[in-house]
Amino acid sequence: MTVNEQALKLHEEWNGKIETTSKCKIASREDLALAYTPGVAEPCKVIAKDKEAAYKYTIKSNTIAVVSDGSAVLGLGNIGPYAAMPVMEGKAVLFKEFGGVNAVPICLDTQDTEEIIRTVAAIAPGFGGINLEDISAPRCFEIETRLKEMLDIPVFHDDQHGTAIVVLAGIINALKVTGKNKEECQVVVNGAGSAGVAITKLLLTYGFRNVTMCDKSGILSKGSEGLNWMQESMMDVTNLTHKTGTLADALKGADIFVGVSAPNIVTADMVASMNHDAILFAMANPVPEIMPDVAKAAGARVVGTGRSDFPNQVNNVVAFPGIFKGALEGRAKQITEKMKLAAANAIAGLVADNELSDVNILPEAFDPRVADVVSRAVMDNIED
Amino acid sequence: MTVNEQALKLHEEWNGKIETTSKCKIASREDLALAYTPGVAEPCKVIAKDKEAAYKYTIKSNTIAVVSDGSAVLGLGNIGPYAAMPVMEGKAVLFKEFGGVNAVPICLDTQDTEEIIRTVAAIAPGFGGINLEDISAPRCFEIETRLKEMLDIPVFHDDQHGTAIVVLAGIINALKVTGKNKEECQVVVNGAGSAGVAITKLLLTYGFRNVTMCDKSGILSKGSEGLNWMQESMMDVTNLTHKTGTLADALKGADIFVGVSAPNIVTADMVASMNHDAILFAMANPVPEIMPDVAKAAGARVVGTGRSDFPNQVNNVVAFPGIFKGALEGRAKQITEKMKLAAANAIAGLVADNELSDVNILPEAFDPRVADVVSRAVMDNIED
Repeated sequence: MTVNEQALKLHEEWNGKIETTSKCKIASREDLALAYTPGVAEPCKVIAKDKEAAYKYTIKSNTIAVVSDGSAVLGLGNIGPYAAMPVMEGKAVLFKEFGGVNAVPICLDTQDTEEIIRTVAAIAPGFGGINLEDISAPRCFEIETRLKEMLDIPVFHDDQHGTAIVVLAGIINALKVTGKNKEECQVVVNGAGSAGVAITKLLLTYGFRNVTMCDKSGILSKGSEGLNWMQESMMDVTNLTHKTGTLADALKGADIFVGVSAPNIVTADMVASMNHDAILFAMANPVPEIMPDVAKAAGARVVGTGRSDFPNQVNNVVAFPGIFKGALEGRAKQITEKMKLAAANAIAGLVADNELSDVNILPEAFDPRVADVVSRAVMDNIED
Repeated sequence: MTVNEQALKLHEEWNGKIETTSKCKIASREDLALAYTPGVAEPCKVIAKDKEAAYKYTIKSNTIAVVSDGSAVLGLGNIGPYAAMPVMEGKAVLFKEFGGVNAVPICLDTQDTEEIIRTVAAIAPGFGGINLEDISAPRCFEIETRLKEMLDIPVFHDDQHGTAIVVLAGIINALKVTGKNKEECQVVVNGAGSAGVAITKLLLTYGFRNVTMCDKSGILSKGSEGLNWMQESMMDVTNLTHKTGTLADALKGADIFVGVSAPNIVTADMVASMNHDAILFAMANPVPEIMPDVAKAAGARVVGTGRSDFPNQVNNVVAFPGIFKGALEGRAKQITEKMKLAAANAIAGLVADNELSDVNILPEAFDPRVADVVSRAVMDNIED
């Protein structure tokens, strides 16, 4: 049986990958009186007087919603809310297994921005955080921004920020390996959707000065046609020298390539045209922008992909469980840039200097230290 | 420590009464590949082609949402969504512990009818059913009716129908004990909110012909002032002789009193004025409309309350877990009158004829047979 066949069979056996489990035994009338009526009225009354007490007496303290409209699922695209459920359930499993965070998959029967915002805001009281997932750009930017303004619980779009954090962690270590300096690096980000935009932003926040975004049409610059409002706003802080041309043009002399785009679009020649000790994160899935061996042969020094069968896997699971664990334990109202940078540094720091190499810049997904280290970093950097 | 103090302390220890638990182990890269990427894409693709496959591969098959706006919680009233959470979590616990049904508490930050309908419809794809809870009348009638029309999963307002089913079960057995005939009984339902209306409807569906509703202002009849649209529609099928007057007037000669109203509003004199072998369900909580010993002394034959420390407790927990268990297992699109009647008959049938008595007309909440018997009755009566 192939992995895919096995996965389908297992999903049928599981018939849902998560369940709700009671933390209190209900074996007698006395149990019932304590967990339900009449005893349950007591915490209700306390919370009615002080909303914050919800964190003391309810699941809000350690439960998030994993919300999607199914518009941009994995490599599958706009498959809608029903078909997106297995992914959201999987995400809920990972939140619990890696971070100890309870997570409820919520797939929405609407792809209207306003309706999504309204719905998430309406269901927020019972949750301690909202993880947005697989919502297509540019709607995801507005949905996240608006919900962050409206809600007093962390709202985090993992496709954007989880990816950005892990990429930055990888780049932090790749800089160490190559001896490159962030202020002097030329960075090319290919793909200007949710992940590409978020990666670019976080790299700039970290201190990179020279980042150029590309998409299918080539280098993006102020005035490029067809930019959405978010991409347009990115033109104020990227490609400051107003380069134009193709991806190949962008890569000439570049130090770092970050691809969240399409299979096999980077050639060996393009890699050869980059600066010495080039760093590539080719994260198209399952087939990367360039295969690691091809990139290496063309002169690349560090190559990361989204795949577990190559070195340097960029896997969001090293970020999101610890991020929400920390945000919930620290009762953060938001997940800020400072917290994201701290998470990236914490992830990078898990690879000790004497273990660092071209093929070892990121911790393993199953490294048992990850979630705790990330959550502590997040907690230590909560701002009011 | 009192029960209330103990309940508050336990709620703090539990810090949320339910959790989400993974049904699949994630201990290796292989596990990750099967439960998450890339394997998860397989069930997604199947569901994208056929929405019904969601029941095969996702939690939809056995998970419901317990939805409230916190507008009419227990005896606490309009305490809002945060304070309502302990009750909804408790309900989720009972669904799982008694019926094996996974349940997610969703408390809504809106009390606007249209907004509630929109929100519930939007989150429906991941759920196999919706249990509405503690939403005030008359909004609850419209919310339930509209959602039933919109959604292809069962929508059930337990405060209405769960209560009605258990009351009917009790009355079915009380008729056996007293030898009364439903066609000839005069029934008075006091309280014209969600439970009172639903009880009245189900009693009429069962075959009672003479039901009179009362509220604080006394007997309700066509033309009474201040009726909401649902109460007005009830006037076409109740009080067909157009009685007017007080609750005391209504009870003269009546066979059955059903109270979902307020403490101590039925006097011994009123009971004495009822027909012989009077049946009373005095369900105001925690203090009933009349105490059972007072009612008995005044001539009542069968008295039920909402309390576990008196005989004949009307406890919804004998109904709702089995109802959703049966509806989910039978893939019902709706919970119909026929299914409700079957559930009531099944609950009544759990008290064997030779066990029936004035003080034993309903099964215990912890009777291990209840959920299975109810769910089978529900399943056997699913209509297309």
